[in-house]
Amino acid sequence: MNKLLVTFVSLLLLAGLQAQELRKEKYQLGPWEDEIGYAQAVRVGNTLYISGSVGDGAMPQAVDQAFGAIQKTLAHYGLDFRHVVKENAFTTDIEALKAANEVRKKYYGADFPAATWVQIARLFSPQHVLEVEVIAVFPENPAPETK
Amino acid sequence: MNKLLVTFVSLLLLAGLQAQELRKEKYQLGPWEDEIGYAQAVRVGNTLYISGSVGDGAMPQAVDQAFGAIQKTLAHYGLDFRHVVKENAFTTDIEALKAANEVRKKYYGADFPAATWVQIARLFSPQHVLEVEVIAVFPENPAPETK
Amino acid sequence: MNKLLVTFVSLLLLAGLQAQELRKEKYQLGPWEDEIGYAQAVRVGNTLYISGSVGDGAMPQAVDQAFGAIQKTLAHYGLDFRHVVKENAFTTDIEALKAANEVRKKYYGADFPAATWVQIARLFSPQHVLEVEVIAVFPENPAPETK
Repeated sequence: MNKLLVTFVSLLLLAGLQAQELRKEKYQLGPWEDEIGYAQAVRVGNTLYISGSVGDGAMPQAVDQAFGAIQKTLAHYGLDFRHVVKENAFTTDIEALKAANEVRKKYYGADFPAATWVQIARLFSPQHVLEVEVIAVFPENPAPETK
Repeated sequence: MNKLLVTFVSLLLLAGLQAQELRKEKYQLGPWEDEIGYAQAVRVGNTLYISGSVGDGAMPQAVDQAFGAIQKTLAHYGLDFRHVVKENAFTTDIEALKAANEVRKKYYGADFPAATWVQIARLFSPQHVLEVEVIAVFPENPAPETK
Repeated sequence: MNKLLVTFVSLLLLAGLQAQELRKEKYQLGPWEDEIGYAQAVRVGNTLYISGSVGDGAMPQAVDQAFGAIQKTLAHYGLDFRHVVKENAFTTDIEALKAANEVRKKYYGADFPAATWVQIARLFSPQHVLEVEVIAVFPENPAPETK
């Protein structure tokens, strides 16, 4: 009995010493994400980190694929592109991305984030031509409840 | 009259359901940013996201261009390089960047951020050799007012 | 005497006008970091920015080098991989990284972050094949004290 108590107390103390778990709210687009080892989005506090979302084929189509996935992800959390504060685009063809920019801009309307675009050697799959990751932020003060 | 009231209440409810706008404080260096669809910097809460700032020509000059734009951006918000916590440098020639590092280091003094440097295939314009983005943070507790 | 007082008050006013210093908690793995001009990690508020951590040789070994350095860094702050919310991997060979992914996944267990992987032209040193940077977050509410 005493031995059991000592074990129990020891476990409690150990739990107190260990790193505490972080409260995250994840979103996944499909089962392949656990296979690869990532989540499409992780919310922590007021910040939402959205994974690199890819597109293939002609660049205008790739832009719609990538930004469509981001839009769906934002919507899951009740957000939209006005909440995106940072965009990083990695593309295999930056001139094609510049040429397809009107397709991208319609997702933002007239409210653009800070951004960085670079042309890289390759993405996850050989057919991918674009990968876009964003950081979005939840408004601090929730809307007043309508009664 | 009743119809008008129903419409008004419906609109109110709709507004309550819609995603709430986020309070952002943007800074732009020029009108080309709206054309391309980005802002040089976006502040949200205590965090400042500064867009990839570019440089061309010889690398020491490119470093001064990129970090000069970052310095100007920080100054707009009353910040300086001590407030930069993260730096990401994308360059077409990482050996040239290493060789020009003393030019970069003088911006930071002796207070350096976390950083990642990679050599990529190309930047927004063919003549760009360097693009640097940073995250800066505003001090939480404002200085006590001098009376 | 009056002159001294005026100087003193002027200095106080000047200090009040200057940008306030930010409270950062840094961690360094070695003296080469000051030489290059970065810190392995910078904590600000509840957010921990960990610099791109590199690996060389065969990819499985490179993954262990990079994630080993990240693990050591997290542990310094009392954190572990459950606190990582975002991962960015830059590699010279994305197929090799995909093939070595089981080595990477064991660091996370079954709790994966948002992520972006891209294949780039080169890293800081010619022998580097992988560079991984992460953002980790400290739990907001500290564990209740055990008495």
